[in-house]
Amino acid sequence: MTRPADEDGYELWLRYRRVPDAALLERYRRQLSCIVLLGAAARSSGEPSTPTLAAALAELQAGLEGLLGRAVPQSDDPQKAGALLLGRTLTPGLEEFRRPAVAAEADVLDELGRDGFALVTSTSGAPRTALVGTSDVGVLYGAFQLLRLLQTGSEIEGLRLASSPRLGLRILNHWDNLDRTVERGYAGFSLWDWQKLPDYLDPRYTDYARACASIGINGSVLTNVNANALVLTDPYIDKVGALARVFRPYGLRVYLTARFSAPIELDGLPTADPRDPDVRDWWRRRVDGIYRKIPDFGGFVVKANSEGQPGPQNYGRSHAEGANLLADALAEHGGLLMWRAFVYDHEVPVDRVKQAYDEFTPLDGTFRSNVVVQVKNGPLDFQPREPHHPLFGAMPKTPLLLELQLAQEYLGCATHLAYLAPMFKECLDSDTFAAGPGSSVAKVIDGSLHGHDTSGMCAVTNIGTDRNWCGHPFGASNWYAFGRLCWDPALSSLAIAQEWLRMTFSNDPRFVASAAQMMLDSREAVVDYMTPLGLHHQMAVGHHYGPGPWVSEGRPDWTSVYYHRADQQGIGFDRTPAGSNAVGQYFEPLRTRYAELEQCPEPLLLWFHHVGWDHRLRSGRTLWEELCGAYQRGVDAVRGFQTIWDSLEAALDRARFRHVSDLLRIQEQEARWWRDACVLYFQTFSRRPLPPGQESAEKSLEELRALRHYYVPGINNPFVARAPRATSGLRPETRK
Amino acid sequence: MTRPADEDGYELWLRYRRVPDAALLERYRRQLSCIVLLGAAARSSGEPSTPTLAAALAELQAGLEGLLGRAVPQSDDPQKAGALLLGRTLTPGLEEFRRPAVAAEADVLDELGRDGFALVTSTSGAPRTALVGTSDVGVLYGAFQLLRLLQTGSEIEGLRLASSPRLGLRILNHWDNLDRTVERGYAGFSLWDWQKLPDYLDPRYTDYARACASIGINGSVLTNVNANALVLTDPYIDKVGALARVFRPYGLRVYLTARFSAPIELDGLPTADPRDPDVRDWWRRRVDGIYRKIPDFGGFVVKANSEGQPGPQNYGRSHAEGANLLADALAEHGGLLMWRAFVYDHEVPVDRVKQAYDEFTPLDGTFRSNVVVQVKNGPLDFQPREPHHPLFGAMPKTPLLLELQLAQEYLGCATHLAYLAPMFKECLDSDTFAAGPGSSVAKVIDGSLHGHDTSGMCAVTNIGTDRNWCGHPFGASNWYAFGRLCWDPALSSLAIAQEWLRMTFSNDPRFVASAAQMMLDSREAVVDYMTPLGLHHQMAVGHHYGPGPWVSEGRPDWTSVYYHRADQQGIGFDRTPAGSNAVGQYFEPLRTRYAELEQCPEPLLLWFHHVGWDHRLRSGRTLWEELCGAYQRGVDAVRGFQTIWDSLEAALDRARFRHVSDLLRIQEQEARWWRDACVLYFQTFSRRPLPPGQESAEKSLEELRALRHYYVPGINNPFVARAPRATSGLRPETRK
Repeated sequence: MTRPADEDGYELWLRYRRVPDAALLERYRRQLSCIVLLGAAARSSGEPSTPTLAAALAELQAGLEGLLGRAVPQSDDPQKAGALLLGRTLTPGLEEFRRPAVAAEADVLDELGRDGFALVTSTSGAPRTALVGTSDVGVLYGAFQLLRLLQTGSEIEGLRLASSPRLGLRILNHWDNLDRTVERGYAGFSLWDWQKLPDYLDPRYTDYARACASIGINGSVLTNVNANALVLTDPYIDKVGALARVFRPYGLRVYLTARFSAPIELDGLPTADPRDPDVRDWWRRRVDGIYRKIPDFGGFVVKANSEGQPGPQNYGRSHAEGANLLADALAEHGGLLMWRAFVYDHEVPVDRVKQAYDEFTPLDGTFRSNVVVQVKNGPLDFQPREPHHPLFGAMPKTPLLLELQLAQEYLGCATHLAYLAPMFKECLDSDTFAAGPGSSVAKVIDGSLHGHDTSGMCAVTNIGTDRNWCGHPFGASNWYAFGRLCWDPALSSLAIAQEWLRMTFSNDPRFVASAAQMMLDSREAVVDYMTPLGLHHQMAVGHHYGPGPWVSEGRPDWTSVYYHRADQQGIGFDRTPAGSNAVGQYFEPLRTRYAELEQCPEPLLLWFHHVGWDHRLRSGRTLWEELCGAYQRGVDAVRGFQTIWDSLEAALDRARFRHVSDLLRIQEQEARWWRDACVLYFQTFSRRPLPPGQESAEKSLEELRALRHYYVPGINNPFVARAPRATSGLRPETRK
Repeated sequence: MTRPADEDGYELWLRYRRVPDAALLERYRRQLSCIVLLGAAARSSGEPSTPTLAAALAELQAGLEGLLGRAVPQSDDPQKAGALLLGRTLTPGLEEFRRPAVAAEADVLDELGRDGFALVTSTSGAPRTALVGTSDVGVLYGAFQLLRLLQTGSEIEGLRLASSPRLGLRILNHWDNLDRTVERGYAGFSLWDWQKLPDYLDPRYTDYARACASIGINGSVLTNVNANALVLTDPYIDKVGALARVFRPYGLRVYLTARFSAPIELDGLPTADPRDPDVRDWWRRRVDGIYRKIPDFGGFVVKANSEGQPGPQNYGRSHAEGANLLADALAEHGGLLMWRAFVYDHEVPVDRVKQAYDEFTPLDGTFRSNVVVQVKNGPLDFQPREPHHPLFGAMPKTPLLLELQLAQEYLGCATHLAYLAPMFKECLDSDTFAAGPGSSVAKVIDGSLHGHDTSGMCAVTNIGTDRNWCGHPFGASNWYAFGRLCWDPALSSLAIAQEWLRMTFSNDPRFVASAAQMMLDSREAVVDYMTPLGLHHQMAVGHHYGPGPWVSEGRPDWTSVYYHRADQQGIGFDRTPAGSNAVGQYFEPLRTRYAELEQCPEPLLLWFHHVGWDHRLRSGRTLWEELCGAYQRGVDAVRGFQTIWDSLEAALDRARFRHVSDLLRIQEQEARWWRDACVLYFQTFSRRPLPPGQESAEKSLEELRALRHYYVPGINNPFVARAPRATSGLRPETRK
């Protein structure tokens, strides 16, 4: 068998390669031989009546031509065998689509939700398929769903499928700067070529919108939360507007980050105080100006009074007053204000993880109705494992937006294979007990627990100018999984992985099974070799690349020692009532479960407890033995991925096979680096020998501590190590 | 006729699309049906005996398969009809290739120069073609030449072609920083993904090397001349070595920039004085370390005592002492030291353009034999038009390397269509009169004028991570032209443009004729709308984007007013003996020709003379009228390009057609911006009305002067305008 042709990953999961199974191909061709736009979906000319329907038709035609190996023309005969009927309603004469195949079956067309679609096979007459959406974008989503069925080799002869997105806001956050650097970006630079906008529209913008729409993403925040006021000026709004025009047919709205001090910086106002009438007026006028150019502008995300960003607390005002200032300006245009709860004091608190809860819970009920509070999955900062954020469930009067991070800021940048759906699911499935058992985070953010209409998730992207978009060939699986989980948080990590693998690489069952297993295990491997047993924030300072458990200088809550608190007795952050009492922010029975050493889940043990080195865990082994064992297990897991991947070579094209193998080699090296650095460092406290089975380190602790890394990607933050510059030894120039 | 499929430009001029002319295709197929490796070119297994021959064979097989639409297999029968014979010598039994077709013809195989090749059709027996190189890389160059013949639709049935590169050093300079920003880079970011090197090798590195080899480029300086000492450390040398391994089969050597103060910065030496024994020892050991990892390392480029870079003058030593320090360290390894003559004083001189000559001519004869002095085409800095640099011809004992700039730092970044071969040719063909008439710059740099073995050109690249490599779809024509001119400076701009257009877009004769004319006219259009009649350095300060004739603040020789010297009497820089006497640096008769107002070539008029507004030029029009007319002519020329391009739509794929049209629209806008800014500004001195035919400006001079541009590409230099930051109005944070 010859190997598939090399691919560079640009097409993501929208590859539309010809169906290799001849029998299946024949069935698909019979079922899908032409496309009919129903009723108002077509103009009298036969053209699609809206840009979104045109996008759906174009995608279907390109996709089906690729998958079926022949063109699928438009037709105007809805009775034609093999017709795919497309529209927002079924026109008269097509009643058989409404007839359930079996008596007990409900009419799927009655089950359609907002922006949903139904895919129904005719139950009589010639074989046909109807794709009906509750909106134009619903039709587009259905088109991608139909293509997905073909891409994954599913049968399509008896379809009775209705589907609509569970969450209303399905948003990507780009931490992209106007100079095209990307904060915590590891896949090249920003997609947005501001210099050439609005005149030149890179075709990549369209492919980005297509990829987003294919998984139901409906919002894109173009700019970094560490915001730049310039993007709010007219020249930039023209550029943003050009992107909005490209995105609009795909149901994708643009949002921007708003810098709280913009009135001072752009127009020289003496203050940005939310109570100042001039400030209120400034925001209203600026927002009006934006909507004049972008009528469907989505709104703002604001990071305020956090890590040096300006905010209402500069004027003694609360986060709610700050949020409401901008929300009022947006309200008349239907705009949304997303206010981030990722705040911690400019003065170092006793326990940084407690601050967001303490600041925000008193404000519950004081936000305007077009404000959502954006809460990270955990209370610290996108660590490989954290407990769910205690704010979930604790602000019943305020819609909360779950913020995830696809960029692997703390999980190996773009060189480690880490499929994050299990991490996202861990949070979504966490029971907050806010309204008794069954009060999962998913129910908080889908609005059902506290009866909010607003619901959603957002994610910091891992997308950049790298040809394959996300750097690591498996990076796109996290973009894909995020979209799919927004659509339906109940989807399993395995099902999503399988879909993505089939669409991205191959339907070969052995490949799919092995690669899916590797994906499912990958995040836990990262936890093991970086921060097992509830450890957190052990990375190198600033760029966050590689281990730095010894980091102790600078602001205490930016150090590692602040979080691991290792000493000769043991290790871990005591967050019980005897310690910082962060457990007190959780609902019972979680509060007690986390507070009691014997009840606390071991994966979170050192998050909540300072534990003695010889404390016996459930395995019967001591903490020190378990800790070392976890680091070794993480390394071994990566080696297992290498073995699996090598065994799959024949099913893959050389280019992508090689790309992943090269990166797995880097990952194995870096897993050892993490293991060695952490074990050797913690051993200076535990003073215990390495347990049996533990590999010895190649470098000494001193050598590991002396390593310096320059120009780690994710630049344009103040921590990037820059080139050495001679400060002495250079005399003033003189000519000879 | 259906339009060609969309292309993104990634393949550059190596597209190898099937030959559309059926008769020609048939002749090609007959002539080229198999490939035979001659004698030592093959191992006993039949495999190519060296990586370079393997690269040549692979390129031929991929190229011929694409062009001929069928595979061209290897064979071991050199007598087979249609055989393409490949090797470094003709083996016995192939004497007929040595037999000239006509009696008067010399044997082309005797004409081969260094790294050259011959392509010869058999004169008896079955039709066959021999490709014989004087080295493996000569064979590779010949392979690309043969493919070029097919790509351009040339006949190949009676080939008797010998070719070898006229210049020895054919080098690209990447001004790439280690954080992947590119100084004066407008096509995305640096190709070199330092973070993932040496472990992950982007396939793009190979395609870069292929593109370079296809036009004979044999050296690549990976890093910015504003150098970072870190690249000399072992971790980076490992990364550089990985690139060197990718490039090696393609005859492409790597070079680095060396920061003069590296001994201080990397190892804490108290000085970088070239006379200090520890400094000499440091460089020797560091260079030894580099060669241990990269045995064919090319050498260093150094920018010293220029624009803030450290250098020997910090210790009162000359440029020669500085250069010789590094040259000595490189010499035993066969390494080359390229010392840049682009220097100007830290104290502002009377006339900046004079300084390089004044500094370097006294040093002639004092440089080591492995030093070349690298001289920009003109004495200022890559302006749209400059006279040739007076150093050419003035340092007979020193080999000089001509430095060009492909990146359009002063010619519209990557959004203006500007084919630069005419500019490069203008310099190469300039007669320096150093040894009497006929002492062209080309003869200086090819070593023939003063008998140097070392010869060459280098060019600051316009290459980045943009999918099409150079940003503008026509940008690659400058990369291509540079390589072709290194190979043979006598090639015409037209011939190079035609080759490039045929290979890049289409052999359609109407397309080639029209597009070539547009290319040939394009550089003069830029001169006209930016800096006509010898004006220079009129751009905005710092980022150099857009016009800034009013720039007058800061260091005087970084301003525009320093160069245009406009007043109520006239405009221009008096460089006659009555002025700065820069003309005195040229040989006679140039000196007199430039010094005499009536003799001075009008395209250089204001470079050498301060000329009255009412001075009559050869046209009979006044200087003011001519100046305004030139600006208008530049704008009109761009509009002409738009008309031409629109007329060619049917011959082109939609994606590239659209990309160029969008950029031409930007170019037309910006040409008007330049015209309006300069004409309105100079009018404040001339106080004369606009001549007839001059369009009036849309914006006032005040509005034009108030324009601010942020985040212009070519970042990571200290001049980039950054976001406004509130310096007042933000009080310390307090919680409510």
